Amino acid sequence: MVVTAVPSLSRPEPRQLASALEALAARFGNRLVTSQAVREQHGHTTTWLETQPPDAVVMAQETADIQDVVRICAANRVPVIAFGTGTSLEGQVNAPGGGICVDLRDMNKVLAVHPEDLDCVIEPGVTRKALNDYVRDQGVFFPIDPGADASLGGMASTRASGTNAVRYGTMRENVLALKVVRGDGEIITTGTRAKKSSAGYDLTHLFVGAEGTLGIISELTIKLRGIPETIAAAACSFATVEGACRATIMAIQTGIPLARIELLNEAQVKACNAYSKLTLPQTPLLLLEFHGTEAEVAAQSEAFSELAAECGGGGFEWTTRPEDRTRLWQARHDAYWAVKAIRPGAGVVATDVCVPISRLADCVVETEADLDRLGLISPIVGHVGDGNFHCSVMADLNDPAELVRAEEFMHRLVERAQSMGGTCTGEHGIGQGKQKYMLGELGPEALDAMRALKSALDPLNIFNPGKIIPAA
Amino acid sequence: MVVTAVPSLSRPEPRQLASALEALAARFGNRLVTSQAVREQHGHTTTWLETQPPDAVVMAQETADIQDVVRICAANRVPVIAFGTGTSLEGQVNAPGGGICVDLRDMNKVLAVHPEDLDCVIEPGVTRKALNDYVRDQGVFFPIDPGADASLGGMASTRASGTNAVRYGTMRENVLALKVVRGDGEIITTGTRAKKSSAGYDLTHLFVGAEGTLGIISELTIKLRGIPETIAAAACSFATVEGACRATIMAIQTGIPLARIELLNEAQVKACNAYSKLTLPQTPLLLLEFHGTEAEVAAQSEAFSELAAECGGGGFEWTTRPEDRTRLWQARHDAYWAVKAIRPGAGVVATDVCVPISRLADCVVETEADLDRLGLISPIVGHVGDGNFHCSVMADLNDPAELVRAEEFMHRLVERAQSMGGTCTGEHGIGQGKQKYMLGELGPEALDAMRALKSALDPLNIFNPGKIIPAA
Repeated sequence: MVVTAVPSLSRPEPRQLASALEALAARFGNRLVTSQAVREQHGHTTTWLETQPPDAVVMAQETADIQDVVRICAANRVPVIAFGTGTSLEGQVNAPGGGICVDLRDMNKVLAVHPEDLDCVIEPGVTRKALNDYVRDQGVFFPIDPGADASLGGMASTRASGTNAVRYGTMRENVLALKVVRGDGEIITTGTRAKKSSAGYDLTHLFVGAEGTLGIISELTIKLRGIPETIAAAACSFATVEGACRATIMAIQTGIPLARIELLNEAQVKACNAYSKLTLPQTPLLLLEFHGTEAEVAAQSEAFSELAAECGGGGFEWTTRPEDRTRLWQARHDAYWAVKAIRPGAGVVATDVCVPISRLADCVVETEADLDRLGLISPIVGHVGDGNFHCSVMADLNDPAELVRAEEFMHRLVERAQSMGGTCTGEHGIGQGKQKYMLGELGPEALDAMRALKSALDPLNIFNPGKIIPAA
Repeated sequence: MVVTAVPSLSRPEPRQLASALEALAARFGNRLVTSQAVREQHGHTTTWLETQPPDAVVMAQETADIQDVVRICAANRVPVIAFGTGTSLEGQVNAPGGGICVDLRDMNKVLAVHPEDLDCVIEPGVTRKALNDYVRDQGVFFPIDPGADASLGGMASTRASGTNAVRYGTMRENVLALKVVRGDGEIITTGTRAKKSSAGYDLTHLFVGAEGTLGIISELTIKLRGIPETIAAAACSFATVEGACRATIMAIQTGIPLARIELLNEAQVKACNAYSKLTLPQTPLLLLEFHGTEAEVAAQSEAFSELAAECGGGGFEWTTRPEDRTRLWQARHDAYWAVKAIRPGAGVVATDVCVPISRLADCVVETEADLDRLGLISPIVGHVGDGNFHCSVMADLNDPAELVRAEEFMHRLVERAQSMGGTCTGEHGIGQGKQKYMLGELGPEALDAMRALKSALDPLNIFNPGKIIPAA
């Protein structure tokens, strides 16, 4: 098994591709870009999957641009791949059959904000940080934080989540409605601004997580939240991963509304101590955030510290002062760079799985043992409230033997999670890298259904072909 | 426009129907029921839509029964309609083209409860009350409460919600995974027990709300919650609907985690005073419920009472004692019977719409004015935190002129909600009764997509035909 090999698809007919490029050039002028550098940038995978650049990139500025790209591509049977910020992790923006990449970064307008309804309407290229800057003075914020400053269209397409999904949900819970450009260039409206609806099939959630394979999102209506009066951060070291997980389970069962709860395993804590010059105990660490009134966050912190003590947690510390919050969370903020610093020059591949929370401790502990057995380094950071954790697998990209071990590790990680009732990916998506796990996770009937849905909504197979669904 | 007319579909070929009935009789013996009374019961709509009974009813006991019914029906091109408790409100269980009803009430086993993961695995005929009785001693509960003691399979199929959706979400947010019997009798697994996943198309949410038109749910994995330490009830009268809505909006914006917030309009309060011998002020009333620790619910009640006072709310009263909670909420518990008592013998049709919460006051006030204009009586009860409200339209079923006015009223109600950015149904579903509003709400492209999905997953059109999607 070699995960670095991604399949190539058959390329468009050369005459049809030329015809499409000609039509696109006529329509978009210098907003059609065919330089090697720009094309490679748009097929970049931020992982060790091979880059497969598109044949050209169109810089879209408005919905009509997406519609025309799709129409031209459909007429010529040329693939069309939507691009947000390129921060996806499983090859979602690769172009295994070539085709046209539609870059949506300039479609970055906030179209409407409705603070009373706690929603807003945006173009797909708006990033989460830009949105939060835009809406902050209205007392509201958008809670989903996958780490990268990703575009909201991309986050919807990969069903992204991140550190505060435990309280606010993932993109699945935070998209109210979409507009989606379909294969003939017309626009599907999937819902309204009503907070709930029973009106027909849930098209919104079919497009959320579809990775651009069923159409291109041209507009999103998403939920906002009121900015909490007080934010408290907390940190607590545990003798064992089991203790940290046990405290998390009890906190959730008793209804403490944790806004974030992040687990750093011992390897990650060591890396952070070294990189950020911290003196944390070299044991598993939980970092927490509480949102609410001053009294609420105090009560939540107090309640959690009691549970933590019961579970072997020590040195519980909490604060509401912004500078102290930053200090407490320093290890988490620097986690990625701390990993990079362990072996400068080595490749780092981020992967994730998600299991029922009762199995999280087992899954992390077995994963740590597997790393030892294979002689690999991969610090672990987990969105522990959701049973979701990340490995950052380090490997010398020029050492084939180590690469094989790293791939074996990732393969066993997924099988472990699936055998515990979990999923091969909690938030990174399938793209190209995880197609091989779909059958084992859901079975052939679910894949049949996905293939039927793909054919139904994209009969020409022009939207981001070669993603999500493994070849039959 | 006459909403009482439901379309009939072409019936199965008589020889094929006979062949199916013969095969079902051989397989199911006296669990195949063809008596007129039982058939009519299974096509009953709890509304004024005409009853369209199926040709026979099969009492399923296990998944293999569903599989065999579907296989026999598919082989003979006979419709198959899943039946839970028959409490849906828009003709979802009617059989406009005849066919076989699969009654799932005996598939009522709780298969597994995982209190640490806050989930459980159940058969589709388990009702919400039975589930809560079963899991209570493990300290957990299932929060969705649509009023009726509906089956969980039916609640998933109609995307039900109810009074505490404002805090806990609807069935959309509470179904983790499903097993669904598809047209060839094989079973689609839509997900795992992981709390979140990015693994491919969201099949779970495609079947949630599909009203049995894409397959039959044979097993559900659903979320549970920890039973709150303390439950407080509160009541508060407002001079105006606007004041009550304003208080609700402020409470949600400031993050008070309301568990329930129900609006009764003046007409509903009057009806309840008369029926339940209460002495509530004859003005709009908000009934609330708070869940949390004792300190939390006290703080939440206090915070809400301050907001309410700012918005013209008077007589705020709250309590955590069970008997006093029942007393405070008496008007809500008796709301349906209070309406029935206004005009004994008249038909009462329940309908619902949902709008962005900022428009709720406008929508309710305009709806009240429309009722006055048409000389109709329809008390209003609203899940005001979600912008969702119900009308209970009374009409003499033997008075054609009044029926026409009632239908005109419901038509205008939907148009009003849609013109305010809302939906024709927040929680009752489409069934037969609301198909005519789908085009206006979502446009032809969304209906094209729904038709394509239906054809893709049910190419023989055997699953509950004639529902949700209007004829092209």
